[in-house]
Amino acid sequence: MSVDAVQALTFDVFGTVVDWRGSVARELAARFGPRGQQRDWPALADRWRALYQPAMEAVRSGRRPWVRLDDLHRENLEQMLAESDLGGLDEAALEHLNRAWHRLDPWPDVVAGLARLKRRYILATLSNGNVALMVNLARHGGLPWDAILGAEVAQAYKPLPAAYLRTADYLGLAPSACMMVAAHNGDLVAAGALGFRTAFVARPQEHGPTQTSDRSAAHAFDIVARDFGDLADQLGC
Amino acid sequence: MSVDAVQALTFDVFGTVVDWRGSVARELAARFGPRGQQRDWPALADRWRALYQPAMEAVRSGRRPWVRLDDLHRENLEQMLAESDLGGLDEAALEHLNRAWHRLDPWPDVVAGLARLKRRYILATLSNGNVALMVNLARHGGLPWDAILGAEVAQAYKPLPAAYLRTADYLGLAPSACMMVAAHNGDLVAAGALGFRTAFVARPQEHGPTQTSDRSAAHAFDIVARDFGDLADQLGC
Repeated sequence: MSVDAVQALTFDVFGTVVDWRGSVARELAARFGPRGQQRDWPALADRWRALYQPAMEAVRSGRRPWVRLDDLHRENLEQMLAESDLGGLDEAALEHLNRAWHRLDPWPDVVAGLARLKRRYILATLSNGNVALMVNLARHGGLPWDAILGAEVAQAYKPLPAAYLRTADYLGLAPSACMMVAAHNGDLVAAGALGFRTAFVARPQEHGPTQTSDRSAAHAFDIVARDFGDLADQLGC
Repeated sequence: MSVDAVQALTFDVFGTVVDWRGSVARELAARFGPRGQQRDWPALADRWRALYQPAMEAVRSGRRPWVRLDDLHRENLEQMLAESDLGGLDEAALEHLNRAWHRLDPWPDVVAGLARLKRRYILATLSNGNVALMVNLARHGGLPWDAILGAEVAQAYKPLPAAYLRTADYLGLAPSACMMVAAHNGDLVAAGALGFRTAFVARPQEHGPTQTSDRSAAHAFDIVARDFGDLADQLGC
């Protein structure tokens, strides 16, 4: 089986490892609820997140020089709050709220699954999140990464090829010795086209109970798993 | 005290965290001893290591484009073996021997000390070793780094300022929120000149029993410690 040559697992993080929607909605509620401001917090988490791809596209296309995700998140936060008529936060409160993305909770199967996978494989992030964000997420959730790689150290946002290829190169591995783990078909298609092995882990609640996209694997990936425990089972860990 | 603002400890690795000389000498002895070839293995470890700074200097000066340390180590290994009339290794054996640098043992106080320090501080490597080397060292020795940073992701070998400044920037921190931990006066002087806090940890046996350099702190560093346990004590961890 081609996955026998895999030495490293590279992980998408937002949605695949951590529940950004539930975590961000909780932080928004905790920030504004006590001030008597009520909104549909999961919908505002969705709106904040919806500004993510367009913001990265400006960097991917070259219209903007490199901007780390923390700074894109901050711009998007200010836009989302203005659209929602939510204001009155001082700089410290805005910055704390922006760092909600540093405090996202892992899905319940993640920590135990990663511990099993780490026995056999190098575990690295291959996320569009910046290094500081990923470090803080790992410390918050107890994620035992061997290395924080991906967009910032590659200076390229996924799905640009350089994000994947530079990550494999930092690991000193051919793409075929790396397996991309993600809950998103597009991420795996991009990685697979470059020679990565691919593992789809279903996260059908990432976007809430009415999610329509990425509910299941839409391509012939090397592995399709229900969660990280199932991934560890299938990899014999 | 100025160290109250420190959020991350950034570590020199070769000599400070791991005993490269003892580990490399053992690997050389294990490789050549059974073939009936006897040499002064610690002296050959020293010779291999002595080629390290000149090799990096060719990159630092711009005479060569970026070359990762694994590749410099390999060039230096071949030179050292030729000088020592040690030959007959095939490609796989040479590559395995070169990766002795991925299997260096930590000093005895390191793992327990890092576990204490990690409770309060972000722990990152700021080494001239490349990412794959650092990842493998960490897995070999059980080193709980939060991030592998330093020369390769900065694309600059210490003591060039970019190696330190880009590492702090990846962590999203000002240099003054980072403390460089090293057994080498020159490394700490370079970091301190850029605003890093500094901790000298004595490793008076790094170069063997007759070591003359870096036996003690030669400057007014923020902390001078006997080992990583003492460093944790002094930082209140």
